[in-house]
Amino acid sequence: MSLTRVHNFSVSLDGFATGEGQTHDAPFGHAGERLHEWMFGTRWWHERMGQPGGTAGLDDAFVRQFTPGIGAEIMGALKFGYPGWHEDPEWKGWWGPNPPFHTPTFILTHHTRPPIEMEGGTTFHFLDTSPTKALETAREAAGGQDVRLGGGATLIRDFLAAGLVDHMHVVVVPILLGRGVRLWDTLEGLEKDYAVEAASSPSGVTHLTFTRAGL
Amino acid sequence: MSLTRVHNFSVSLDGFATGEGQTHDAPFGHAGERLHEWMFGTRWWHERMGQPGGTAGLDDAFVRQFTPGIGAEIMGALKFGYPGWHEDPEWKGWWGPNPPFHTPTFILTHHTRPPIEMEGGTTFHFLDTSPTKALETAREAAGGQDVRLGGGATLIRDFLAAGLVDHMHVVVVPILLGRGVRLWDTLEGLEKDYAVEAASSPSGVTHLTFTRAGL
Repeated sequence: MSLTRVHNFSVSLDGFATGEGQTHDAPFGHAGERLHEWMFGTRWWHERMGQPGGTAGLDDAFVRQFTPGIGAEIMGALKFGYPGWHEDPEWKGWWGPNPPFHTPTFILTHHTRPPIEMEGGTTFHFLDTSPTKALETAREAAGGQDVRLGGGATLIRDFLAAGLVDHMHVVVVPILLGRGVRLWDTLEGLEKDYAVEAASSPSGVTHLTFTRAGL
Repeated sequence: MSLTRVHNFSVSLDGFATGEGQTHDAPFGHAGERLHEWMFGTRWWHERMGQPGGTAGLDDAFVRQFTPGIGAEIMGALKFGYPGWHEDPEWKGWWGPNPPFHTPTFILTHHTRPPIEMEGGTTFHFLDTSPTKALETAREAAGGQDVRLGGGATLIRDFLAAGLVDHMHVVVVPILLGRGVRLWDTLEGLEKDYAVEAASSPSGVTHLTFTRAGL
């Protein structure tokens, strides 16, 4: 069975997944990298950066779920680029020539363009369609493996509202951003469809997992 | 040193401390008692109800901090009563003849009335003043002990914004209420003034403590 999964999706205590004022030079606006410092401390991240060290405990165990079993990713237009990226024909995302996805990657946008093949197995496809249709397309491309939803918050919320998410890992970071894009809005009663667990880490963050009831 | 403390203040994952539609028969609106079930499971609560049993782990350890060292409480008008309670001359709060405060208890309201002496040491005083002035009055009444802020969310937020909170225990309950009164709004950067810890409990809630830096 091919699942739809969310991993390592970080929000502030007040529920913001990104800050205000996203630009070419500030992918997370005034939040900066503060929502992701927990990740940079892990051994997994250090390995990716070719560095020694890093923690090998709870944060590392969770962060490593990102890759195994994933055959495709879907992301929103504002994960792929800054507001206005579609006016730049050379824009190929934030991640350099070898993005960390290594699978077909579908970008939901009203500004489609031809696919872009990157190094390392990532190909960016641009779709202007509904969450349900996008998931059908991505699932086919995943070849029987799972589909990861990469964010941002608006995309995750749309897929949750449509009942399309099977497993979701959210990381609550103990900071108050005050402004930005919220994850939790308009999701009253979401917990009824999921088994929810919380696990606090020595790093200060709390890992939440939502697993669809019956899975 | 007399501190200003918050204990057992429960919020949903989306940050609501109470639901929408608070009435005489629904003190927490559509939230019902869902934000406080973790508390009802503790040995401390069972003891108060004269019942055997209850958990004696993390939730119980935190919930018991409510009483020791407290010499007075301050609460907001909508913790004391339903919207419109001030038009009922007989209203004496939700808690029956022997309220669980057992100290002078100050209600911040625009509708003041003479003090009400209850059983068990609780006397309700009604103040129409600022957080700072209310705290001066409560601290004096506390006789060198600490002052507890009882909520609701608007009161806690006002005291946080004024820099008046020394220690705050918030319990994040894994439900999404979708609507009601939020705790975290307009508090950007609050964490800079506090040491923050998070501890998840087997009951599913996560205990957050904010302790003022340097305390």
